[in-house]
Parts: sequence; structure tokens; C-alpha cells
Amino acid sequence: MTVSPFDHPLLSGLLGDEEAARHFSVEADIAAMIAFERALTEAEADCGIIPREAAAAIVKTLASFRPDTGKLRAGVTRDGVVVPELVRQIKLAVGEPHGGSVHFAATSQDVIDTSLMLRLKSVAEHLGLLLTETIIRLASLEERFGGRALTGMTRMQPAVPITAADRVTAWRAPLQRHQERLSEQLARLLAVQFGGAAGTLEKLGDKGPAVRAALAGRLGLADAPQWHSQRDALADLAGLMSLITGSLGKFGQDIALMAQGGTDIELSGGGGSSAMPHKQNPVRAEALVALARFNATQLSGMHQALVHEQERSGAAWTLEWLLLPQMIVATAASLRLAAELAARIESLGH
Amino acid sequence: MTVSPFDHPLLSGLLGDEEAARHFSVEADIAAMIAFERALTEAEADCGIIPREAAAAIVKTLASFRPDTGKLRAGVTRDGVVVPELVRQIKLAVGEPHGGSVHFAATSQDVIDTSLMLRLKSVAEHLGLLLTETIIRLASLEERFGGRALTGMTRMQPAVPITAADRVTAWRAPLQRHQERLSEQLARLLAVQFGGAAGTLEKLGDKGPAVRAALAGRLGLADAPQWHSQRDALADLAGLMSLITGSLGKFGQDIALMAQGGTDIELSGGGGSSAMPHKQNPVRAEALVALARFNATQLSGMHQALVHEQERSGAAWTLEWLLLPQMIVATAASLRLAAELAARIESLGH
Amino acid sequence: MTVSPFDHPLLSGLLGDEEAARHFSVEADIAAMIAFERALTEAEADCGIIPREAAAAIVKTLASFRPDTGKLRAGVTRDGVVVPELVRQIKLAVGEPHGGSVHFAATSQDVIDTSLMLRLKSVAEHLGLLLTETIIRLASLEERFGGRALTGMTRMQPAVPITAADRVTAWRAPLQRHQERLSEQLARLLAVQFGGAAGTLEKLGDKGPAVRAALAGRLGLADAPQWHSQRDALADLAGLMSLITGSLGKFGQDIALMAQGGTDIELSGGGGSSAMPHKQNPVRAEALVALARFNATQLSGMHQALVHEQERSGAAWTLEWLLLPQMIVATAASLRLAAELAARIESLGH
Amino acid sequence: MTVSPFDHPLLSGLLGDEEAARHFSVEADIAAMIAFERALTEAEADCGIIPREAAAAIVKTLASFRPDTGKLRAGVTRDGVVVPELVRQIKLAVGEPHGGSVHFAATSQDVIDTSLMLRLKSVAEHLGLLLTETIIRLASLEERFGGRALTGMTRMQPAVPITAADRVTAWRAPLQRHQERLSEQLARLLAVQFGGAAGTLEKLGDKGPAVRAALAGRLGLADAPQWHSQRDALADLAGLMSLITGSLGKFGQDIALMAQGGTDIELSGGGGSSAMPHKQNPVRAEALVALARFNATQLSGMHQALVHEQERSGAAWTLEWLLLPQMIVATAASLRLAAELAARIESLGH
Repeated sequence: MTVSPFDHPLLSGLLGDEEAARHFSVEADIAAMIAFERALTEAEADCGIIPREAAAAIVKTLASFRPDTGKLRAGVTRDGVVVPELVRQIKLAVGEPHGGSVHFAATSQDVIDTSLMLRLKSVAEHLGLLLTETIIRLASLEERFGGRALTGMTRMQPAVPITAADRVTAWRAPLQRHQERLSEQLARLLAVQFGGAAGTLEKLGDKGPAVRAALAGRLGLADAPQWHSQRDALADLAGLMSLITGSLGKFGQDIALMAQGGTDIELSGGGGSSAMPHKQNPVRAEALVALARFNATQLSGMHQALVHEQERSGAAWTLEWLLLPQMIVATAASLRLAAELAARIESLGH
Repeated sequence: MTVSPFDHPLLSGLLGDEEAARHFSVEADIAAMIAFERALTEAEADCGIIPREAAAAIVKTLASFRPDTGKLRAGVTRDGVVVPELVRQIKLAVGEPHGGSVHFAATSQDVIDTSLMLRLKSVAEHLGLLLTETIIRLASLEERFGGRALTGMTRMQPAVPITAADRVTAWRAPLQRHQERLSEQLARLLAVQFGGAAGTLEKLGDKGPAVRAALAGRLGLADAPQWHSQRDALADLAGLMSLITGSLGKFGQDIALMAQGGTDIELSGGGGSSAMPHKQNPVRAEALVALARFNATQLSGMHQALVHEQERSGAAWTLEWLLLPQMIVATAASLRLAAELAARIESLGH
Repeated sequence: MTVSPFDHPLLSGLLGDEEAARHFSVEADIAAMIAFERALTEAEADCGIIPREAAAAIVKTLASFRPDTGKLRAGVTRDGVVVPELVRQIKLAVGEPHGGSVHFAATSQDVIDTSLMLRLKSVAEHLGLLLTETIIRLASLEERFGGRALTGMTRMQPAVPITAADRVTAWRAPLQRHQERLSEQLARLLAVQFGGAAGTLEKLGDKGPAVRAALAGRLGLADAPQWHSQRDALADLAGLMSLITGSLGKFGQDIALMAQGGTDIELSGGGGSSAMPHKQNPVRAEALVALARFNATQLSGMHQALVHEQERSGAAWTLEWLLLPQMIVATAASLRLAAELAARIESLGH
Repeated sequence: MTVSPFDHPLLSGLLGDEEAARHFSVEADIAAMIAFERALTEAEADCGIIPREAAAAIVKTLASFRPDTGKLRAGVTRDGVVVPELVRQIKLAVGEPHGGSVHFAATSQDVIDTSLMLRLKSVAEHLGLLLTETIIRLASLEERFGGRALTGMTRMQPAVPITAADRVTAWRAPLQRHQERLSEQLARLLAVQFGGAAGTLEKLGDKGPAVRAALAGRLGLADAPQWHSQRDALADLAGLMSLITGSLGKFGQDIALMAQGGTDIELSGGGGSSAMPHKQNPVRAEALVALARFNATQLSGMHQALVHEQERSGAAWTLEWLLLPQMIVATAASLRLAAELAARIESLGH
């Protein structure tokens, strides 16, 4: 079953990105959720919330814990989230007398959102590397062909002569601003989620902030008050994803337009046609435009999901799941394709 | 790798629909593409375009043909579409002297769009059944509880007394109009795609229309001039998908609002919470809202894809692939969830 | 104050359409709301709900009634809708003893939605004429230049020779399907809205349906049960608007692409540049693309507005007001520009 | 003609913001464009590009220049931008021998984009003040009612007790992050646009950077290389607008949900109904939700407009004009409504 091209055995070769997609696999999600439960256990033991022996037993169990995924699937169908069933299985594996200390004071959203943050941290590193790679490739184009002539085109009409460097700069400069935006955003984004049933950590009394700080520290995330219903950092990240793919969509569009006439640019390795073997289609360039318009589309939904009712919205939260992972994989794919496309430019300008 | 919840081993239990998703699997797509190549071969033999023996050899080969999917994946990465590599493999399997008659006069888009139409035909039947099922369930609610009292709520404030039937009618009536829309749309939608390299079937001389009619007939699709760059029927279908999920989103939202107070409605089998075992979350109702907002989001991209350049746009076409299958599966999931939710309403009104 | 280009004294010359915009002016809205109140009065008198003398007094007053728009504005700020204040002013103008018979059994949404339907009826005629006009212009292009040669372009690369007729057909054919869609939709759309406080016409007892039928008849609209919270026909109309602008966006994009090289097409009256007096920018073609992407964007919001809570949603309803009028004017502008652009094609093909 | 509620004489009382809208009036735009031409003249005189006397004559003429707006409108219809006709009128007013020095080396986009930046600078101050005001009002709610009890609601079901402060914090905290984002963005956004015909300032030889710096200095904008086809800062601003309205939409939604039951919150001055005089509709709360969904919708289009062809895209640029001003006015309106709504909360919690 492969409804999305990002998961599709054939189409993901063009439209997907394996490294980014890996972080959204079930395996990666479960591993991160288990990391949360382990760190929570340790943090609560550190703060005297649960007994040391309980923590030891839980940590030991988690080290070799493998969930029953059939039951997890049924759990999602029933509960809308995987956590109740996952915790049930963990508690069962831990057994008496320590099972009751598993997941203490936490709620499903704490686990799922923190798991997302742990994975976004890795994904952001991947995206950062891809951004740098693409910038380097474009800078290298500028170095090789920058002095050559192009006809500046405004409103799709020939205007005045420009250099290839002028056009390449317009591709590269936004990417450098996106690097800056990424680092600004990560400072706000990568925070632990820990609030308990309705955000108040009521079961921890006055030790809530201490447990949360310890949990954050163990997971390598920033400590911050729970943000169950405050989704601005995620919507902002989605915006950055779409800014990146939008800038690369402009690059792709420009390449496809130049490739039309065939004299401004020379590309190696264009795509073949089943009807016309001589054609060299600018497949990567077109894919960049498609991914730009895809992310621009999805972004709207991530902002609709800001209208998050009360202390936790099942509807708005579920909507995020349907959108954000695909936006991130689209962005990684777009960066990968852009770097590849830049590397295939054999000649630019005259 | 499961980036999309519709493909996700755990989340698709709630948010997916197996029957709809099945039609978007690689297997179903390849089977439909092979059906196209077989029907084309037969139609071209019927019209005297290719020799009868060539047709016989191709049809025989196709009956047991299994493509090398690893190479298909590489083909998509290179060509942006799977067809050139698929046709290459088929030709190789057919071998000399008949390989050259495979896929004669056709282009990649003919295969891919017709494959989509073949599968949409089945999907539309499935959606039609789900629509009917949901309407029946709602009608049954009306019958059981219609005479009971509810407080009409306008602008989220108590207004005047209404009956449960008044509210249920507002859920059911749009679905009946969607049935009507579906049948109007299918008449325009389910047509063969066959135009060759740039839509003119230039290799078939004056036999183009006859071959196309024979091809359509063999595939059980309507015969129509090629619509390579005319995507209105697909965008319109996407709109209907979003009308359906939007109407069901209203149903879900109403149920969630009624479930808040707890006296207007009684639901069986609500979702559990990892923090609060007593809670009964209206998981299906929330999922209906999420799926409605998801499809409303995607729809925008399907309409962006109407701006299809010249005789065929790689960018706009690829964008469709990223959007339409998910919209259809979201719609099937939403209908399934709505029927389930209606069946879990134990009591409505006072 | 002119925030929207459709209202802008300068930009609306390019991006607006006076005839369509006229129907969304305050004057047109107030006139239609007064027509509703008058027809309601007459219908209720016919059915014996209000006294004949009351009806006569109200109808007489309405004939010369001019609201205090400053107070209407304040009313909207306070009530979120204009109707409570408008009705207050009408009642005051009618005076005792008949003021109490004004707006009897109706609610704000009845007035506003019916006013919209009355105006959409006129707007649809206008759009129908514009569609026909554009189709005729394209057919005339086909007649004049259809036999000439063009290079078919697929995936933005030269493919095989086609005729100008092949390309023009791809512009024209969708518009003819849109005519068909428009007539299908109008049959569902143009219905009176009359439900009273929460949709049940509770104040009219068993005479509700008779009054509604009489009201519909007097207004020249279809009679149908109230659809306060069922917005599918409006979202569907929005979809058709975007299908039209999308098809015309493809036309515009193709023209701009052809105009690039300068030999495939000859356009008269291109736009001038402040920097390069020699340039002839394909301004109308670009505007068609912009309007297509604009409507594709808005459409998403119209579908979000389907999630209409309970018997009436202030939020979802207000969202429609922010979107639909602009979509309709954008569509009219796009049709007007397309007809103009077609008329400026001096030569097409070789 | 008032197609958009933001311009509508009646609806803008609720949905508009006069101060923000003022900056998007024709008058404000023309004033800013004239300020650009004056500053350019002075900068070019400073750098020895045009004669001092020419500059003096131009500056003197501009001081009392009033364009013929009828001709400007015709100019937009013809050229797609107002600048060629505006410059023609200015040149005519300056007359010989200095008319030729008007607008020297500049292009339409320089004028229009810089005019936008000048106005965004003022608008950003206005938005900053509104943000602060809303934060203060929410902080005051927290102070007055923070200690009171509320039932935490998760997934629209009662969860555990929280305090009013817990809920108010979730409304206020995102706004403070938006203040931070606004200041980060303005540093990248508020830069002069000056590139000439195709971005190279080719008419200024090696003095291009000096003139641009002088121009920026005189206008109080940052100096930066031209960004004709790099629209990321504008799309990012649009994202921030939608983050703000999204956060306030959550506030509005929460208020409307609390107002349903009627015991959690007490609001003064709710909206009246034409059918039910006793009702108090949470009009401002609903408008906040509508404006949030409106901006989330528009945002998609601003990101579509990132795919800006070559050195200047008429289509993508025009699309921005159709979207950004409305998004900004919607944001100002939303902040104004949120502050007003907070001020009308007479009681919160128990």
C-alpha cells in the first residue's frame, strides 16, 4: 500500500529522500518514544518521584522491548494515538511491582511530540547539510560560468544582457538566508514536550519543573513549559520548508525555461521519453517545481492546525501528522535534486 | 519508510482505507499499465496497425510478464516516469521480431493517465458504496432518534429547540447531493487517454480515432480526444472528494461538540487516554475533522496543477501524483469512519 | 481604503471586472436584502401569517427606504451581521402598528444568504456570457490559424509537429465543459434560504413550507429546505470558478511561453516598461496565470468553511464572505482578459 | 465597488483595520512611489549621475505633483504596472530639459517594491503596537482571574482541573514569540529595491552600489542587492501574519467554546440576533477564527509566488499584490479584535 509518492517503491526514487524518510518510519518513531519513556523514568528516579528499583527495572525492560505492532495498530484505531497501547505493553513487560511507575505523570501527547522533536533534531542536521551542499554546488556554478553572458528575461520577455552570475546569485542568496532562518527556528523549536494530562504536571506537585528539566537534559532537548496547544514553532518550521522548496522551485523553473531553447544551458542526463527517444527532459527541474507547489499547498493546512481547541485538539494535532512529515521529506528531496541538477549543468550562458 | 499516515502501518488503521489504498499500490498500477499495453496491442491489431502475430506474441508475453521493479525505480529517477523503462522491459521480454510493435504510437502519459482512469473506475464504485452505507446509517439514526429534542445552536450559542432529525438531516442531505455529483462527474471523467507523443496520434495517420475507440472499448472506458493538458475532470474530482470530507467534517465536528457536554449524545467505544483511563475521546469524530481540513488543503494544489504548460507539463502532472491518491484515500477513510461513528451513536437527543 | 486589487481604483482596471463587482457592492446587497424582506412580507400576507394592511404598509415603506449606513456599519461591528440593525431601521420606518410584522419568522442568515443567491443569479448570467464570448474568440482563432504549424512542446522540450488547432483546442475544450458544469451547478445552487432562528421555521407552524415556496416564487429562486449549515453548493461553485480560471491560466501560460521566443505568436498591444520602452510584455497572459493561482489558493478556504458547526457557524460563514466574492470577480476578470487576449493574437503558428 | 470585506463600508467595521488599510490606499502607494523618485533623484545627484539642476527641478515638481489617476488606471490596464504611466506624467510635469533625468536607471519593480517596503515599515510598527496591546490585555486577564479554576479539556472532553492562568498562558506565550519573530524578520525584510531593467543597474556603471546605498539611506531602509526575483522575505512575513492570526484564532475558538456553556466565561457586549433578541453571540471570537482560517488560506498563494520566473515574473508578482495586503489587514484586524475581546471578558473561571 503506497498512497504517497514519498513512500512509493518506484516514485520515491525521484520524489523522496531516504535519509529524511527514515526518521518518519514506524521504527524510528517507536525508538524515540521508548527513548522518551526511558529518559522520563530516569528523570523521575533522579527527582525521587519513582523508586530507583522501579527505574532500573523499567530501563532494563525497555532495552530489549519490542512492541506488538499489530496491537499498536489496533490501538491507534481505537484511541487515535498509539501511546495508550504502547504504554500498556511496556507496563506488561515490566510487570509487577514496577509497571505502575512506567509513563508516570505523562500523557500521550508528551510522548508523541517529544518523539517528533528528537527526530526533527536529526532531520534538521540532515537538511542543514543538504542546504550547504546545494549552496556549494551553486557557488561552483557561479565560479565556473559566472562571467558568461545571458539575456536577462523580465515578464518572460528579453530585457537587457546580464551575466550567468546574476542569475545564479538569485538562486543561491535565498538559500543562505534559509540557513539563518533554520538556526533561528531551531532555537525555538527543539524543546521537550512534558505537561501531563492537561499540561499542569499535576501529579508531580512542585517537582514538575525539575523533572521536566532533567528529562530535557537527558534527551538533549531544550527545557520549556509544555506547548501542547501552542503549535507555532511547527507551523513556522513548515513555513521554512516551503521557503526552501519555493526558492528551489524558482531554480527548477529557470532551468526548465533555459532548457527549452537549448542554447543557454547544457544539461547532462536528462530524462528519456517512451515516444521520442531523442528527447532529454529536464526531469529534476520539473520535480523541483512540483515539490515547491506541493509544499506551498501543504503549508496552508499546517496553519489551519494552529486553531487548536482548548488544552489539546485531537483534530488539529492529527492534521499535523498528515502534513508535516511529507513537507519535510519533500524539502529534503528538493535539496537533493537541486544539488544533483546543479551538478549536471555542463554549461551555462554564452 | 512510511512518511504518509495513509501508508503508515500503525496510523493507517485509523486514517487510511485498505480497499482504496489497494488501487494506488505499485501492483495495481503496474497491472493497469499492462492492461493498457495489452488492449492497445489488440486494438492496433484490429485496426491493421500492427501484425496479428506481433499482437499475439505481445499478449502472450504480457500474460506472465513481471517487471524488474528495481530497474523501474531507477527509470523513474532518470526519466521522471516509469513508462520508458517498463516498455523497454516489455520489448525485451517480447523479443525480436515483435518487440517493435509494443506500445506503438503511444506515449508515457497515455499509459499513466489511462492506468489512473482504470483504477479510478474501481475506486469510484467503492466510494459510491461507502456513500450509500453512510447515508443509510444516518437515515437509521433519524428513524431511531429523529423525534427527540435538541437545543439548536447558532453561532455556538443556544438558540431554539429543534429535533434530532433536524440536525441529522443537515448531515445526510449533502451526501445525497454528492451521490448526484459523483454520477455527473464520472460521465466526464472516465475516458481513455491516448494521444501519442504530443497528442496528435501522428503515427497512426487517419486510423487514430479508430484505434482510440477500440482501445477505449476494450478497457471499458469512454472514448474521448486526448486530454493530456486538460486536467479539469481530475481537479473537479478532487473537489468532490473535498466536498465529501467537508460534509463529514461538519458531522464529526458536531459530534465532538455534542460529546463535550455528554448529555446530548451517547457514544460507544470512544478512545482511551494514557493519562486518564476514564476518558472516552471522540476519536473518529476528530479524525473526520482532520481529514476534512486535509482534503481542503490538498485541493488547492490540484487546482494549481491546472496550469499545465503546452502539450504536457512534467511539473503540473507530477504535482497531481503527490496529491490526488491521498485525497481519494482520505475520502474513503472519512466515509468509513463516518459510517462507523454513526453506528456507535447509542443515543441522540432527549 | 482599497486593500484588495479587485476594489482598487488603479489595479481593478486590469484585475477586476466592473459588472461582476457591481453585484458585490453595498448598494446591490442592500437592494437584494430589501427585496427579500418585501417578498417575505408578501408571501406571509398571501399565507395569512401577517395582516394584509401590515404587508401593504411594509411594502410601501420599503419602496423608498434608505438605510443609515453609518449605523449599519456599527451594527456589523456589534452583531457580526448587518441584518439586526437593518431590520431595526426598517421596523422604525414602518412604525406602529405594523413594524412588528417586518422580517417575521426570519433570521439574519435567511436574508444574507438569499441576497447572495439573488445576486449570484445575475452574476451567473454574466459569467455565462463571458464564457461564451471567450469560446467564440478561441474558435475564431482556430478558424483563422488552425492549419498552421507549431512545434508541440512536452515537458518544456520540443517534441513533434502539431497544428495551431491542436493547441487552441486544448484551451477551448475545457471551457465548454465548464458551461456544462455551470448549468448543472445552478440547478442545485440558486435556492431560497429560509429557516428562521435555527432552521425549523417554528414561528410559522405548519405553514412554513407554503410561505417558503411563495417566497421562493416571488424571488425567482428554487424552493428548497433551509441549508443554513450545508454549504456544499457554494464550495462547489467556488470550485467551478477555480476550474475556469485554471483553464484560462493554462491559456495565459502558453501565450507567455510562446511570446518569449517571439516567432510562434504575434500579439498586439503588449504592456510597456518604465525601463525598456521597446518591450511588449504579455500583461494579460501573466494576469491570467496570477488569477488562476489566486483562485486555486482561495478555494482551499471555501472548503475549510464546509466544517460549519451545528445549526449556524459564525466563523465558517464569515470566512465565506472573505473569499467567495473575490473568487467570482477574479473569474469574471479572467474571462474578460482571456477574450481580450484572444482578440489580440494577430498571428499564431507558422 | 467593494468586493473584499476589508474594503467594504459595512463589513470592514468588524473585519478590517483602518490604520493598516490606510497604508494600502492608492494615496499612500502614490506618496511612497513619489518618495522613491525624489530620493532616487537626490541620490543620483549626490553621486554625480544626474545634474544638480535636474535634481532640483524634479524635487520641486514632485513636491506638488498630483497624478491623473484616470490615466494611471488606464496605464495599469495596459502595462500591468502603474509606473510607466506615472513616470510619463512626472516627466511631463518636470518638462524639458530635465524630464529625462526622472527615474533614471530604475525600473517599475524598483518603485513598487520599495513603495511596499516603506509602507510595511509603518505597518510593522502598527502591528508591533497591537501585539503589545494584546499581550498586555491577556496578562491583565491572567492577573485578575489566573487563580480561578477551569476544567482542562483535551480532545474536547473534560480532563483534569487547571487554572485560568494555564489557559491564558497558552494564548499569550505564542504572541511573545511572534514579537521575537517580527524583529528577526524586519532585519531581513525592510531593504530598498533597486536593480534597474534586469537587476544589474547597468546604466550606473560602477556607481550602482553607491547610488543604491544613498537611496536606501534617504528612505530609511536597509541597503541590499536587488531582490527582484527573491521573494522569501515577503513569503516569510506572510507566514508570520498567519502565525499571529492562527494563535489568535485559537484564542477565539477557546472563547467561543467556553461561551457555549455560559458558566466558564462572562462576556460583555455580545452580538445581537435578528431572530432571537436574547442571544449574545461571541462575534469577535468567531471573527478571530475566520481571520485565522483566511490567512492560513492566503499563505499558500504567497508561497506559490516564490516560483518567480527568471529576472522578474509578472504573474508571481501580481499574485503577491492579490494576497499580501489582505493578509496584513486581516492580521491587524485580528489583533484589534483580540484586544477588544480580552477587554470584554468580565469573568473567567470559577
